[in-house]
Amino acid sequence: VELDAAGLDALLARWPVARLATVTPRGRPHQVPIVFAAQGGRLYSPVDGKRKAGGEPARLRNVAATGRASVLLDHYDDDWSALWWVRLDGIAWVERADVALLDRVAERLLAKYHQYQSLPVYAGEPALLVLRWERVTAWSQSGGPEPILRAAGRP
Amino acid sequence: VELDAAGLDALLARWPVARLATVTPRGRPHQVPIVFAAQGGRLYSPVDGKRKAGGEPARLRNVAATGRASVLLDHYDDDWSALWWVRLDGIAWVERADVALLDRVAERLLAKYHQYQSLPVYAGEPALLVLRWERVTAWSQSGGPEPILRAAGRP
Repeated sequence: VELDAAGLDALLARWPVARLATVTPRGRPHQVPIVFAAQGGRLYSPVDGKRKAGGEPARLRNVAATGRASVLLDHYDDDWSALWWVRLDGIAWVERADVALLDRVAERLLAKYHQYQSLPVYAGEPALLVLRWERVTAWSQSGGPEPILRAAGRP
Repeated sequence: VELDAAGLDALLARWPVARLATVTPRGRPHQVPIVFAAQGGRLYSPVDGKRKAGGEPARLRNVAATGRASVLLDHYDDDWSALWWVRLDGIAWVERADVALLDRVAERLLAKYHQYQSLPVYAGEPALLVLRWERVTAWSQSGGPEPILRAAGRP
């Protein structure tokens, strides 16, 4: 399926959830659901910086070790003709130092998720997982971009 | 979150979609949505055996090369207090030869998904991706298993 850049941008602005896959330093797959904002070919996901019993969250360790991530947006439907997914694969890293970027992304997250009106975007030490995607793969059961564009609010 | 074996079995029997993460031979993350059936500590996902332009599906190549997979079930909700996810990590392989197993899993998939009443479970050469999970990780925003058990139909 061909998904144009405007369609992808609209989907990323509207679709609330994705799954982040990374690879551990031992080479094993790891995944977790994420919320995110996107701008200028980069996807940003805030990381809860509260120290866990096990130290830093696995996705941060994984990205620091491998420099890669994959983000999957998809729709499941009882009507299988409506199924679609979009996957972004590319370079990933953790951003903690660029305060202007952290602030800008926090604003975008606040605009996208009303839930952040009563929650801090960054709990503990602010951190963003950043994906600069190199490849976009889109699939739909119907073979066309229409169900993805509808999900993106572009009829 | 502690999720008992009966709760996990009930969730796997009822929840229709998951995301499969694998690692490519080059060490990069890969993921795709899947349907599945589970029994006896193993999760089975049918693979469309139709030959693609690029040859075998990436998840089969990845599992053959690395022997590992991760499967994530999760629920997104506008009410973030209802969020939960369950992840199964373990050993994975591709099963093509065990016809009795392929048939048994096809029956379970037919019982779980009415959509297979009008679709073949195995298109082309029958194949199953099998995950024997070694680790179950469960998380809920509320900190308890209740939202997961509700999704599993166990009030």
